[in-house]
Amino acid sequence: MNLHEEMMAMADRAVVASRAMAQLSCRRKNTILEAMADELDKRRDSLKEANALDMDAGKAAGLSAAMLDRLLLTDGRIDGMIKGIRDVVALKDPVGEKISKWLRPNGLEIIKVRVPIGVIAIIYESRPNVTADSSILCIKTGNAVILRGGKEALHSNKAIAEALQEGGKEKGLPDNALQIVGTTDREAIRELVQMDGRVDLAIPRGGEGLIRAVTEHARIPVIKHYKGVCYIHVDKSADTQMALQIIENAKVQRPGVCNAVEHVLVDEAIAKNFIPDLVKTLRKDSVELRGDESARAIVGDLIPATDADWDTEYLDLKMGIKVVPDLHSAIEHINKHGSHHSDAIVATDPTALKEFTEQVDSATVYANASTRFTDGAEFGLGAEIGISTDKLHARGPMGLEELTTYKYVIQGTGQIRP
Amino acid sequence: MNLHEEMMAMADRAVVASRAMAQLSCRRKNTILEAMADELDKRRDSLKEANALDMDAGKAAGLSAAMLDRLLLTDGRIDGMIKGIRDVVALKDPVGEKISKWLRPNGLEIIKVRVPIGVIAIIYESRPNVTADSSILCIKTGNAVILRGGKEALHSNKAIAEALQEGGKEKGLPDNALQIVGTTDREAIRELVQMDGRVDLAIPRGGEGLIRAVTEHARIPVIKHYKGVCYIHVDKSADTQMALQIIENAKVQRPGVCNAVEHVLVDEAIAKNFIPDLVKTLRKDSVELRGDESARAIVGDLIPATDADWDTEYLDLKMGIKVVPDLHSAIEHINKHGSHHSDAIVATDPTALKEFTEQVDSATVYANASTRFTDGAEFGLGAEIGISTDKLHARGPMGLEELTTYKYVIQGTGQIRP
Repeated sequence: MNLHEEMMAMADRAVVASRAMAQLSCRRKNTILEAMADELDKRRDSLKEANALDMDAGKAAGLSAAMLDRLLLTDGRIDGMIKGIRDVVALKDPVGEKISKWLRPNGLEIIKVRVPIGVIAIIYESRPNVTADSSILCIKTGNAVILRGGKEALHSNKAIAEALQEGGKEKGLPDNALQIVGTTDREAIRELVQMDGRVDLAIPRGGEGLIRAVTEHARIPVIKHYKGVCYIHVDKSADTQMALQIIENAKVQRPGVCNAVEHVLVDEAIAKNFIPDLVKTLRKDSVELRGDESARAIVGDLIPATDADWDTEYLDLKMGIKVVPDLHSAIEHINKHGSHHSDAIVATDPTALKEFTEQVDSATVYANASTRFTDGAEFGLGAEIGISTDKLHARGPMGLEELTTYKYVIQGTGQIRP
Repeated sequence: MNLHEEMMAMADRAVVASRAMAQLSCRRKNTILEAMADELDKRRDSLKEANALDMDAGKAAGLSAAMLDRLLLTDGRIDGMIKGIRDVVALKDPVGEKISKWLRPNGLEIIKVRVPIGVIAIIYESRPNVTADSSILCIKTGNAVILRGGKEALHSNKAIAEALQEGGKEKGLPDNALQIVGTTDREAIRELVQMDGRVDLAIPRGGEGLIRAVTEHARIPVIKHYKGVCYIHVDKSADTQMALQIIENAKVQRPGVCNAVEHVLVDEAIAKNFIPDLVKTLRKDSVELRGDESARAIVGDLIPATDADWDTEYLDLKMGIKVVPDLHSAIEHINKHGSHHSDAIVATDPTALKEFTEQVDSATVYANASTRFTDGAEFGLGAEIGISTDKLHARGPMGLEELTTYKYVIQGTGQIRP
């Protein structure tokens, strides 16, 4: 079998498995998940042995310290996977929910029912824990899953997937409900995302390069998790103390994540008083600050910002400050230069709050709060497979519900169309 | 400007227009739509003149009679477009709806609000009325639209689009909210569907060839409206009189549409009595019947069905009949050979009804009713931009709600993440 045939066969097996998955009760799925958690717990040693093979190969290949850290499987990280599974067991199963129901004049009853999506491909990079974290969300929602992790983590991923498969099997996990692509050939990704009619959705989890590669070749729906170039606008009506706290939190609390703020806009009416305070606060936190011309006229030693800065996700202790003439300019700037992920306004004027939240075209728009709350757990979704920067199917934090679709069941008594 | 630059500029204009569109009140949008309807009414003569150019060119190019009929714009069809607009005015605007709202323990209020998608590209074939029918649904839902119709209808499409633009403009339609691609270069389609970040959704409306071409090149979400290989299964518990009526209706009432039935499965327990009645009924309607070996053992002069028949959408007075050993085989056959569009069971046994509707993986699954009801109007959606055979974002009949997405607005009082 060549790669194409191999991947087709894998997808066909997943389709068969997805039919069985869709019929599992919530109770059955939870029993399967519990058994998966137990099996991971039992196999700690063999998981770490498999991981050691990847770590040795990674070191030999000269992977960076950051890459090696992502690759490493420790007892703490295995605990994390196990806890993740148990947390998902406790969540409500969205499958089977009657989303809506109505009666037509001819007596037909139309019921919109939530059902699993079918076959989901998860394409990810070097963190082996994604193998468990993503699969269990797919399993809980009655989907079959095909996993394609980074080649540097292949031994670890296979060991984790095997534990999940073996643990689940005893409790009734359908054959092939969870499959892992065994080859490291990059062509396998292209094959996977071109299987329309077999694979229903691809979720790439990783850097921009991976996401672009998937999108370019895909013939199936892809839900993307692009970068977060998040903005906070400080309105002239802002409580400036609140603004300082929110900006500091959004920049400093965890700068390396997608919902950290990258740039601040300041209304010119308050810029002269506010920007010096802002600079003082953030310099205490060792944030490297860039400013536009107007900001630099107020604080002379800001690094001059280039045009490219306003589209940049630093993921670091760096931030841009720009003075805007009014709210409307702020909104326009954010819609043009932001990444439609998470943006905030600090203001007391209700009109400003209303216009900003209505007109900023982002997945999550905050009034007087830190952008750092864009997160499944912080939203109360219980679990999250990612934060979608797409507009279709899912936008913002994606929980269990976003791993489902719907169908219409129509109950008749012999109706025909006149 | 080359084609790429031209299409980029068009998409950029659409993005700007989409921001303005998203802020229009329902009342304003309705005023715009009314004015569009009036303008079409006023321009009947010029619309028919433009259409005559297309018709002449079409005849000269040797288009088939069916193609020419699709292309033709009559007063009746202009009436249809006008009525279509007025019907959409009367519909509820889904934009702004608070889909859900919850309070977090830290006091953050999370509101999931329905918003327009943004920029929608409609790619269609020779029917000029699609120009009006699709645009007005996009306008009603606050989206900007880019239209790309068939080259054979270019004069008609331009005339219709111009009427809509001019009519709308006076009442506040934002500039470039409705644009039509002026070139007949097929490359324009490829350009359109690769504008990720600018065009948010492509909806191809037309035959399989068009849809495949769009899907293959797309880097943006596409909602497809593929074929309907619809099945009806006659269970051993069926009211056979009801089954005959439903099958006759689903096959004969309008055979050329996607929700017409193409194949019937019959449980072997009732095949011997039922199939002769079925054949008699359908032959009265001049339906050409194919049968599998078992069906032909009961009625000898059925045309032998080939394997390919079971995957075929005839769109014609043709139908396949197949005997199945049980309900489970019927479900498996439909999931494998159907097109996941509309499938029905006729049965009285509640278990059979339940298993069929739960296990058949189609957009619409009927219990004791004709498949012909899969339609926006029949569902009570008021209007329909198509019937999605995709699973993501929209499945089944797509009304106004399916032309929207959502965003999260989060109201805080200074919350920061600990």
